Amino acid sequence: MDTTVMLGHGSGGTMMKRIIDDVFFAAYAGEELLRGDDAAVLPAPAPGERLAFSTDSFVVTPHFFPGGDIGRLAVCGTVNDVATSGATPRYLSVGFVLEEGFPIEDLKRICASMAECAREAGVALVTGDTKVVNRGHGDGVFINTSGVGTLAPGVELGGAQCRPGDKVLVTGTLGDHGITIMSCRESLSFSSGLESDAAPLNHLIAEVLAAAPHTRCFRDPTRGGLASTLNELASQSGTDITVEEDAVPVKPAVLGACEMLGYDPLQVANEGKMVCVVAPDEADAALAAMRANRYGADAAIIGEVASAQPERGPKVFLRTAFGGTRILDMLVGEQLPRIC
Amino acid sequence: MDTTVMLGHGSGGTMMKRIIDDVFFAAYAGEELLRGDDAAVLPAPAPGERLAFSTDSFVVTPHFFPGGDIGRLAVCGTVNDVATSGATPRYLSVGFVLEEGFPIEDLKRICASMAECAREAGVALVTGDTKVVNRGHGDGVFINTSGVGTLAPGVELGGAQCRPGDKVLVTGTLGDHGITIMSCRESLSFSSGLESDAAPLNHLIAEVLAAAPHTRCFRDPTRGGLASTLNELASQSGTDITVEEDAVPVKPAVLGACEMLGYDPLQVANEGKMVCVVAPDEADAALAAMRANRYGADAAIIGEVASAQPERGPKVFLRTAFGGTRILDMLVGEQLPRIC
Repeated sequence: MDTTVMLGHGSGGTMMKRIIDDVFFAAYAGEELLRGDDAAVLPAPAPGERLAFSTDSFVVTPHFFPGGDIGRLAVCGTVNDVATSGATPRYLSVGFVLEEGFPIEDLKRICASMAECAREAGVALVTGDTKVVNRGHGDGVFINTSGVGTLAPGVELGGAQCRPGDKVLVTGTLGDHGITIMSCRESLSFSSGLESDAAPLNHLIAEVLAAAPHTRCFRDPTRGGLASTLNELASQSGTDITVEEDAVPVKPAVLGACEMLGYDPLQVANEGKMVCVVAPDEADAALAAMRANRYGADAAIIGEVASAQPERGPKVFLRTAFGGTRILDMLVGEQLPRIC
Repeated sequence: MDTTVMLGHGSGGTMMKRIIDDVFFAAYAGEELLRGDDAAVLPAPAPGERLAFSTDSFVVTPHFFPGGDIGRLAVCGTVNDVATSGATPRYLSVGFVLEEGFPIEDLKRICASMAECAREAGVALVTGDTKVVNRGHGDGVFINTSGVGTLAPGVELGGAQCRPGDKVLVTGTLGDHGITIMSCRESLSFSSGLESDAAPLNHLIAEVLAAAPHTRCFRDPTRGGLASTLNELASQSGTDITVEEDAVPVKPAVLGACEMLGYDPLQVANEGKMVCVVAPDEADAALAAMRANRYGADAAIIGEVASAQPERGPKVFLRTAFGGTRILDMLVGEQLPRIC
């Protein structure tokens, strides 16, 4: 067996067949829909079911970190994006861009992690592609996943649905993923015990929708963190959003790292968290449903939607622990690159 | 406006919003399904319609070449993969991995080319993602496209459907794409006038299926060329396939380049060609349908499927112009990397 990725593994011939059989099929065994044709053929959705479709590329370094790896991120990220629409994620595609010289053992670990995470999420890896780039023109491994889900009639979630009075929830502590990646990269020790939160949240979302049918939207606060996500939601719905700083769950290790480095924890990336906006009278039910799920134990109601001031346009405000209020802006430029 | 890609364009904040608005939405104007949520919600398929799903990443260099560019390849490649199942390609996702420093003007050209090609194919670009990697950890631009199509009840194409007696067709001359890319890269002049054949073939496929309803399969002979594709089909269906060398259309410029460089034109990559296996009594109808399409003018019947010898397993044979017969193997290792 080859020990590192070579250009021939991407050239469509016998070496490529070998890596597909020995690495990909070996890891994804039981995924019956992979048939050797260029497109996967999938069953007809139930009558009236719409489709949800999303894509994400993953370029994080390091490839392995506490709490996960690039493969787990790649499955969770797309599962979660599809699930935010209210759809049931069903099928994933996987596209690898490998750099010549990447260790085959690492690729096997990544594929095993993807297969395990797909099983947990209940999605099937049904089609894939592998390209190999010359040494020095990639970064070991990049992964694209795209996902297809089915969406029951009548479910209409989206940032534009938020309206004044709605409550804003998060499913758990913020900043864990971004600070974990940064600590790994810089070999910092202040975050000992911290782990990436990468997790498939589709089951949690389904449970919240069952408990709180007037949920307006889910959005995962990945790059740009909570601040960017709330600004997107405010902008899409033409509303103001006010967040209570005291109510936002952040681990002490994350807070400490952010203070030392001058980061705002509300702008740090998450991978296994959801922001959720819910009709006011269903907020408690949504919160209880989150807390009942293993990935929602630290869920909290953190804020509220209000009418925007016409002369100023939609804004996001943070009411601080000291009683002041400041505007919470989107991240400008870049804080911590390649966290996903 | 920024002139080159910066890390901040991938960080989820205001710079990323700017590149999305100024580059992607500007190019894909009219694609109404892009709404700012994390997943595109797509209409329900007609009752009984199955889905076809495929993915492909594109890493070709140079990014622009005679007859196309990486964007045109990225749309055509996935449109064609979805169409090989007999499905109507409908929706594409687009995932960019950009290298810091990549010129924004080049990105705009690529996006314009993708939009134009999507219009020709009749597919909508409905969801996307952009990542930026540090200078020296990418190669300007990599693109992943994934595609979803709808497949009418009863259509069952695939490599496993080939059976003894079937005819093998190609939709045009072989090797144009691979030799064009190599000539560009090495600044060779023997191929003057040669162009990449990158083209969306979904309409051609639909026309062939209408004319020859007992078509067994389509497969695009990209990496590994005709030789690898036929070996895949033989292996999937447990048959032998014999090709008449004289019948295979190859342009003189491609033949000349291959002779000079020691390449086998049957192992060189194509991007706008299909191999098609058809029931014997429908081969002429399929050929006529191909030739009536602008991308099938040079189509030809090039060979036949036969029973495999049980003691030897499925094989592909080439009957040469001199009357001999040799085994046509899959490409071993790599011939010409990063042609797509």
